Amino acid sequence: MDSLTPHAVTVMFLSLAVLLAVARGLGELAQRLHQPAVLGELLAGVLLGPTVLGRLFPGVGAFLFPTHGPNALALNVIATVAIVLFLMVAGIEVDLSTIWRQGKAGCKIGIASIVIPFSLVLVAAWLLPHTLGRQPDADPLIFMLFLAIAMSISALPIIAKTLMDMDLYRSDLGMMAISAAVFNDLVGWLVFAVILSLIGDPSGNDNNIATTIVLTLAFAGVVLTVGRWVIHKVLPFVQAYTRWPGGELSFALILALLGAAFTEWIGIHAILGAFLVGAAIGDSSHLRERTRVTIDHFVSFIFAPVFFASIGLQVDFLAHFDFPLVLTILLLTFGCKLAGSTIGARWGGMSPRESWAVGFAMVSVGAMGIIVGLLALRSGIISERLFVALVIMAMVTSMISGPAMRLILRPPKRWRLHDALSSKYFIRELSALTRRQAVHELTAATCQAAGLNASAIEAAVWAREEALSTGIGRGVALPHARIEGLREPIVAVGISESGIDFDAPDGKPANILFLILTPAHNASTQLVISAEIARLFRRQHVLDHALRTESFTDFLALMSTAVASEPSGL
Amino acid sequence: MDSLTPHAVTVMFLSLAVLLAVARGLGELAQRLHQPAVLGELLAGVLLGPTVLGRLFPGVGAFLFPTHGPNALALNVIATVAIVLFLMVAGIEVDLSTIWRQGKAGCKIGIASIVIPFSLVLVAAWLLPHTLGRQPDADPLIFMLFLAIAMSISALPIIAKTLMDMDLYRSDLGMMAISAAVFNDLVGWLVFAVILSLIGDPSGNDNNIATTIVLTLAFAGVVLTVGRWVIHKVLPFVQAYTRWPGGELSFALILALLGAAFTEWIGIHAILGAFLVGAAIGDSSHLRERTRVTIDHFVSFIFAPVFFASIGLQVDFLAHFDFPLVLTILLLTFGCKLAGSTIGARWGGMSPRESWAVGFAMVSVGAMGIIVGLLALRSGIISERLFVALVIMAMVTSMISGPAMRLILRPPKRWRLHDALSSKYFIRELSALTRRQAVHELTAATCQAAGLNASAIEAAVWAREEALSTGIGRGVALPHARIEGLREPIVAVGISESGIDFDAPDGKPANILFLILTPAHNASTQLVISAEIARLFRRQHVLDHALRTESFTDFLALMSTAVASEPSGL
Repeated sequence: MDSLTPHAVTVMFLSLAVLLAVARGLGELAQRLHQPAVLGELLAGVLLGPTVLGRLFPGVGAFLFPTHGPNALALNVIATVAIVLFLMVAGIEVDLSTIWRQGKAGCKIGIASIVIPFSLVLVAAWLLPHTLGRQPDADPLIFMLFLAIAMSISALPIIAKTLMDMDLYRSDLGMMAISAAVFNDLVGWLVFAVILSLIGDPSGNDNNIATTIVLTLAFAGVVLTVGRWVIHKVLPFVQAYTRWPGGELSFALILALLGAAFTEWIGIHAILGAFLVGAAIGDSSHLRERTRVTIDHFVSFIFAPVFFASIGLQVDFLAHFDFPLVLTILLLTFGCKLAGSTIGARWGGMSPRESWAVGFAMVSVGAMGIIVGLLALRSGIISERLFVALVIMAMVTSMISGPAMRLILRPPKRWRLHDALSSKYFIRELSALTRRQAVHELTAATCQAAGLNASAIEAAVWAREEALSTGIGRGVALPHARIEGLREPIVAVGISESGIDFDAPDGKPANILFLILTPAHNASTQLVISAEIARLFRRQHVLDHALRTESFTDFLALMSTAVASEPSGL
Repeated sequence: MDSLTPHAVTVMFLSLAVLLAVARGLGELAQRLHQPAVLGELLAGVLLGPTVLGRLFPGVGAFLFPTHGPNALALNVIATVAIVLFLMVAGIEVDLSTIWRQGKAGCKIGIASIVIPFSLVLVAAWLLPHTLGRQPDADPLIFMLFLAIAMSISALPIIAKTLMDMDLYRSDLGMMAISAAVFNDLVGWLVFAVILSLIGDPSGNDNNIATTIVLTLAFAGVVLTVGRWVIHKVLPFVQAYTRWPGGELSFALILALLGAAFTEWIGIHAILGAFLVGAAIGDSSHLRERTRVTIDHFVSFIFAPVFFASIGLQVDFLAHFDFPLVLTILLLTFGCKLAGSTIGARWGGMSPRESWAVGFAMVSVGAMGIIVGLLALRSGIISERLFVALVIMAMVTSMISGPAMRLILRPPKRWRLHDALSSKYFIRELSALTRRQAVHELTAATCQAAGLNASAIEAAVWAREEALSTGIGRGVALPHARIEGLREPIVAVGISESGIDFDAPDGKPANILFLILTPAHNASTQLVISAEIARLFRRQHVLDHALRTESFTDFLALMSTAVASEPSGL
C-alpha cells in the first residue's frame, strides 16, 4: 500500500502547522482591522509561498512546500477536502427561503447583480482578450465566459459577515442584500458549472458537453427539490435513532462528499456538488444549530484557512504582478458590479441611498471569485498574470465593501462589552465595604486612568445610584452614568470577594461591579452593555468563575468565552 | 504543482463517503448492541477491504480503494491526519491530575497493569517467537518489546466509555480504573516510543538510537511540565484576544501538529507527539468545554471512523487468519492483563470483587493496541498473521470488558427517557379537556398498547394525581405510578395544543403530558426520568418546538437533540 515516508509525514505536519498558524494569525489581525479574515489567510499563503519565503529563503520554501512529490500531493489532498467542506458550509449558510421571502425585489437585484456585470465583462473580454490576459491557446469563448463569471459572482459569506458586523443582517436592507447574494451565488455557480463542462475533462472522461450540461442542471434541480425534501424528512430519523450529535454530523458530511464525487465525475468541479448539497441540508428547519455550529467552527477556523493560504503557495505574486492588468480588472469589476447591483436595487424600488449601500454590499467578490480563478488557472484558461490580478481584485473589493457601506449608511457604532473593557480599568480586589465607598473607589481609579474629571463623574454616578440602586442581583451591580464629552464608552470592573450590599432584588451582595460610563449623546450603548452583562451572569458558574480569575486577561477571557457559550437554541 | 486528477478527486470523495457511511453505520449498530463504536468502524474496513469486497467484487474494491497510486496516497494522508487528531483527543481526555488525586492505589494498579502483562508477554515472546508470529528477519529484541507493549497497553477511551455507560465514571472505583488507565497509557506510549526509536528510521535520518531515546524522554518531560505550564498561562490570552472559539481551536490544533511533526522527526511516530501535546492542553483548567467538545465531535465522528475503517483496507483478514495464533494471542493478553490489573487492585487495597471489576475494566486493549500493531506491521516487525490476531484480540477484549464488569458489579440498569419512549405510547393530540379526562385517555391508550390492566393503573395514577397535582409548570405535567410486575419503564406522551389545567405552580396549562410508569421495585427510575424531563423543558423553546412536532420521530428527535444541547458550562 502506498504510504508517506516518515520524512514526508514530518514535513506534512510541520507545513500544516506553519500554514495554519500564519493563516490564522493574519486572519485574526485582519478581523482586528475590521476586514474579513480571508484577506489575512490569503496573505499568509503569499508570505509562505514563492512570492516571499521562496524568494528570501528558497531552501526553506522548497523543504516546507515542495511543488512536486508526495508532500505536494498531500497538501493538494488536504486543500481539496478543505475547499469542498468550505463550500458545503457556504451552501448551508444559504437560506433558500430568504430568496422567496424577499420576493421580487431581491430577485431583481440578484438578476441585475449578475446579468449586468456578466454582460459587460463578456463584451470587454471579447474586445480586449489580450489586455485581459487570455492564454494564447485558450478557447476565446470559454475565456470570455470564465472571466465574466469570475467577475460577477458575489462572496456571500463576506457580505453576510459585513452586514452582521454592522448589525444590519436582520434588517430589510440586509435581508435584501443577502437574498440577492444567495440568488447571485446559486446562478453564478450554475453558470460556472456549465462553463466548466464546456472545457471537457482532461482525464479523458468521455461525457460529452451536452450530457454534462444536462446532468449538471438535472443534479442541481434534483438536489434542490427532491433532495431537499428527502433530507428534511430523513433528518428527524437520524436525530431520533442515532447518537446525537454524531449521526447528524456524519449524515451531512457523507451527503456532501457524495455530492462532491458526483459533480466531479460528471465533469464539473467537486465543490459545486458540496455547495448544492450544503444548500439542501441548510434549508431544512430540522438541522440543529449545534451541528451547524460544530461544522462551521471546524471548517471556518481550520480547513478554510489552510485552503486559502494554500492558494498563495501556488503562484509567485511578484513575478506575475502586472499593474495595468490589475488596475483594469479591478476597475472593471468594481464598476460593473457596483452599477449592476445599484441599478438592480433601484429597479427593485429601493431609495437611492439604500441602493448604493446594497450596491457596495454586492461589490465584494471575495473567496468565490478566487476559487473560480484558481480552477481557470488549473485548466489553463487564464495566465498566472490574470490569476494574480483576480486575487488582488477579490481582496480589494472585499476590503472596500464594508467601509463604503458604513460611509453611506452611517450606522451608529455598536459598542460591545468586550470593546469597552481594558486592563486600565480593572480592580481585582476592591477595598470598599459599602456601596458609597465602592462607587468612590471605582470611579476615582477609573477617572484617574482615563484622565477624566473624577468629582463630577462620581457625583453623577452616585446621584443615579441613590435614585435607584443598580444592584441587579446574582452578585452583580451596574453603577453607571452618561458623560458629556466622552467619546467612547468605558466599562470599569471592580471585584469584591466578600461582597458589597447593593440593595439587590435577590438580597445578595454584589461581588462584581461594572461601572459603565457612556457618551451622553448615545442613549442605547448603556442599555446594550447592561443587557449583555445581565445575560452573561444569568448562569451562576460565570460569577463563580469570575471570582476565581487572577488577572485582567483571565477576566477578559471569561467574558469572551462565556458570551458565545450561551445556548443558541436548537 | 502536483495535484490530483479529476478522476482521482472523484474516487477520493466517493471512497471517503463510502468509508465514512459504512463505518458510522456499523459504529452506531455496535453502540446499539452496547459495544464500543470502534468495533463497528473496524468491521467496516474489513467489509470494504480485501477481506470481503475485494474478494466478492475485486473490480469495485480496486476502483474505490486502490493500493497504489495517488488515491492510495490520498487515503493514507487523510488516515495519517485522522489518527494524529484522534490521539490528540485521547490526550486531551487524559486527566493528569486524576492520577495524583487517586494517589498510590491508582499508581499501583497502573504499574501492575502494565508491568505484569509486559513481563509475561516478553518471556512468552522470547520462548515462542515463531508461534507468536515473528517475521523471520525481524530483530528478536524489538519483536519481544513490541508484542509486549501491544498486549499490555489499555484503551483509555473505551474504558472511560464503558464506565460512563454504567454510571460508574465518577465513582471511586471508576476514578481508580481511569487513573490506572491514564498511567498505563502514558507509560505504555513512552515505552512504545523508546521501542520505536530502537527500530531506527528507514528514511535515513541519522539520529542514533541513544539520541532518539534522550530526545523522546526530554520531549515528553518538557511537554508535560514546562509545556503544560506555558499552555495554561497562554490560553487566557488566546481566549481574551482572539475571536472565540476559533482562536482556541486553532491554537490547540497547531500545537498538536507541531508535536506530531517533532516526534516523527526524532524517529518515533507522529501520534505520540499529538498525544502528549493533547495531554498537556487537556490538563489546563482554562481549556473551555466548548472547544473540547467541538474538537471531540469532529474527530470522534468523522476522523476516527475513517481511520479505523482504513485499517481493514490494508489487510486480508481471511487470508491471514490463523486460528491457533489468534487464540494464543487472545488468551495470553486476556490472562496477563486481567491478572496484572486485578493483582494491582488487590495490592492497592481494593476488595476482591472490586479488584476483579477493575481487572476486567483494564482488559480492553481496543484502539490503542491496534495502532501499535499497525505501526509494527508497517515497520516489518510483525507478520500480517500476527497483525490480524492482534486486531481480533483488541476487538474481543473490548467486547468482553463491559459485560464482564456488569456481571461482577451488577449495577442497577439505568433507564433514560430516550429508552422508555416509543411510538406505541404517543398521542399527538389529546382530545381530553380536563385533568381527569387526560389521565384516562393517556392511561387507557398506553395500557391497551402495552397489554396492561388499564383500570388498576388508571386508579393508581389518578390516586397519585389527586393527592398532589403533577403539573410541574412550563406547560409540562408528569402523571405517574409504580406498577407491580412491570419489567421496564414506560413513558407515554400526550400533547394538547390547547393545554389542560394541571394546577401547576406557575398557573400555566399543561401542553405535554408524560405518563411515567415504572417497576414497583425500582424506586429511582421515576425520579431520574422526571428530572430529565424537567431539565429538558427548562428552556421555553423546547416546549414551543415540541408543539410543532408532527410525528413521534420528530418528537423523539427533539428529545434526543435537546438533551445534549444543554449548556455544559465553560
